[in-house]
Amino acid sequence: MSRSRENSVGLIDPQLYHHSQPFLLQNGDVLHGYELVFETYGTLNAEKSNAILICHALSGHHHAAGFHAADDAKPGWWDACIGPGKCIDTDQFFVLSLNNLGGCHGSTGPNSIDPMTGEIFGPSFPNVVVKDWVASQSHLADHLGIQKFAAVIGGSLGGMQAMQWSIDFPARLYSAVLIASAAKLSAQNIAFNEIARQAITTDEDYCAGNYRQFNKNPENGLMLARMVGHVTYLSEDGMKTKFDRDIKSGDFEQGANVEFQVESYLHYQGRAFTQYFDANTYLLMTRALDYFDPAREFDGDLTRALRKTKAKFLVLSFSTDWRFSPERSQEIVDALIRARKNVASAIIESEHGHDSFLLPLDRYTKVLRAFLQRSLEEFESSPKQLGIKNEGGA
Amino acid sequence: MSRSRENSVGLIDPQLYHHSQPFLLQNGDVLHGYELVFETYGTLNAEKSNAILICHALSGHHHAAGFHAADDAKPGWWDACIGPGKCIDTDQFFVLSLNNLGGCHGSTGPNSIDPMTGEIFGPSFPNVVVKDWVASQSHLADHLGIQKFAAVIGGSLGGMQAMQWSIDFPARLYSAVLIASAAKLSAQNIAFNEIARQAITTDEDYCAGNYRQFNKNPENGLMLARMVGHVTYLSEDGMKTKFDRDIKSGDFEQGANVEFQVESYLHYQGRAFTQYFDANTYLLMTRALDYFDPAREFDGDLTRALRKTKAKFLVLSFSTDWRFSPERSQEIVDALIRARKNVASAIIESEHGHDSFLLPLDRYTKVLRAFLQRSLEEFESSPKQLGIKNEGGA
Repeated sequence: MSRSRENSVGLIDPQLYHHSQPFLLQNGDVLHGYELVFETYGTLNAEKSNAILICHALSGHHHAAGFHAADDAKPGWWDACIGPGKCIDTDQFFVLSLNNLGGCHGSTGPNSIDPMTGEIFGPSFPNVVVKDWVASQSHLADHLGIQKFAAVIGGSLGGMQAMQWSIDFPARLYSAVLIASAAKLSAQNIAFNEIARQAITTDEDYCAGNYRQFNKNPENGLMLARMVGHVTYLSEDGMKTKFDRDIKSGDFEQGANVEFQVESYLHYQGRAFTQYFDANTYLLMTRALDYFDPAREFDGDLTRALRKTKAKFLVLSFSTDWRFSPERSQEIVDALIRARKNVASAIIESEHGHDSFLLPLDRYTKVLRAFLQRSLEEFESSPKQLGIKNEGGA
Repeated sequence: MSRSRENSVGLIDPQLYHHSQPFLLQNGDVLHGYELVFETYGTLNAEKSNAILICHALSGHHHAAGFHAADDAKPGWWDACIGPGKCIDTDQFFVLSLNNLGGCHGSTGPNSIDPMTGEIFGPSFPNVVVKDWVASQSHLADHLGIQKFAAVIGGSLGGMQAMQWSIDFPARLYSAVLIASAAKLSAQNIAFNEIARQAITTDEDYCAGNYRQFNKNPENGLMLARMVGHVTYLSEDGMKTKFDRDIKSGDFEQGANVEFQVESYLHYQGRAFTQYFDANTYLLMTRALDYFDPAREFDGDLTRALRKTKAKFLVLSFSTDWRFSPERSQEIVDALIRARKNVASAIIESEHGHDSFLLPLDRYTKVLRAFLQRSLEEFESSPKQLGIKNEGGA
């Protein structure tokens, strides 16, 4: 770990944003205030023109870079890309990362107390969708005095948030980076999410979502959900390279009790996940993924949905990603071009499947770094930069 | 259904083969006799030269064609391809289809009585592997007086059995048809199988495999296992065509309670599966899939494993099959060519993924029909045809 600490943002203290106003959700429910836990890396400049918002994916959270304690075994989930001198360079940018509403890492979510009942929300926590996340993130930006982000960046479900930002708040981001994402899930994506949900909700310890009240945790279901996710995040070739048919234990001659390395790995990862992730949050996040479909209000026409956006777009995908394949990214690029928007895109060669977006792959980080650098320069030299206060969100 | 009955093999009575000798399994266990349930379609000719053996896949069984009762809603699982005038033409061929050892449709398996204890085997039923199936099928062939099959045919796990036949009993089949199969599973394949097994064994109703004794059935686990299988058998494009993001119930404006068609379909199929398939058999079949690897005894060299084969091979795969992709079939073809064997192959364009092998696709059925026709003619005109009695199996 010593090597990764050299260009690390170092020890980070999470902060809490408290939103005290009622917050109307897309489904008509109202949250009577909420909290978002967030972290920042780097320094916000006087013009507040160097802010980047990081939107997290299904199992992500606010802790994207650095360490919470000197003896932490692992840094934040995107430490490979965020830090001094890294492609999201904290020497230049002020990076904001939060845990989304409905999360299980400190923001208001299913494990929070419902102020209306005094009990934890549990399964009664309202369904939140990507549009709700983006609205809540805009309040956090207001709180920090950030009128316009130099960039909003996200991978996977995070990329959906970056896209929704560009639609809902066209004047509040200079650029949007959509990595390994999609304009909507495919039937296959939904099917895998539904398998994960089914695994959780049929676990006897799920208790109709009230497992906390019974001091239970639907570990087997959550483990299975994570195993399904894990397999779909890796490429077939990547799994071959990593595990092939190597045997962890047992003996082929005996026939029985052979455990392949890939099985052992999935068990371990799945079991570990149950210790730090909440089942109700997992259900909520997968539903938000399924529902995301900004073209829906425009008769399925993504080009029309993107027409009012003003951001410069960077759309990145990975050659072996079959969960969010390059074709899904190409659909976004095609719609942006039809809408006459400024868009750059690249398909990065990688054997690591969907998980590639977390890795500091050479071409990937170079493309991302160059795009962000140019965005910052253009944004700061833009004459409109300081005159945007009245351009509020859509 | 009336249309499919027109060129149907009609009403079929399953038959039972009783093997009274002890049967030594690959893992060293001994079965003290076993039974195989089987069906036949068409007429065995006097020379017994027109027999085709059908080997079934993971969730298959002996009932491949025709109907068991006049009011059956559905015919056998491969009725689209087996029947008078169909590509596996029962006007020409005598087709034999059985339920494999360890199955749950009438052959000796986990739900049979263990003669040594008087109790059902349950989880103590021994692990059987593809080689064991092929050996037991050879005894059934002996029983029927079939010295040499015109063809042994199988899709998926069935293709693995056809390959094993060509290795273990080179003199007992004229041709082998391997459809949507592989010489061994990939790490990804194993991972999906392990997720299915994990779903079953962590279901509280699994009762360590003794669910019958407690009048239970691990339905949720078996349903999940089937859902995972189902998603991997369909192609992403096929699912898009079939379901896209169509909604079964609920309302997007409300946000919650939206059920997509694909979810409803998977639930229905998964739930139905639990009513006719046994969990211990599912575990056994997936393990047989994982363990299959005939090259293992030859230092991983598939070419050497195939060196002693004598069959003519037809290797077919489907363009959108990602569970057993065309690349996996190509590995078999390459090894056969290196071993200087007679092999024909084709990649069939289809949007139906792995499930394509069950469907009467035009090019697929034409290739298969032509290959079988030629095999029969060549086999019957072969001077060696009647002189093979001393060539017994490997």
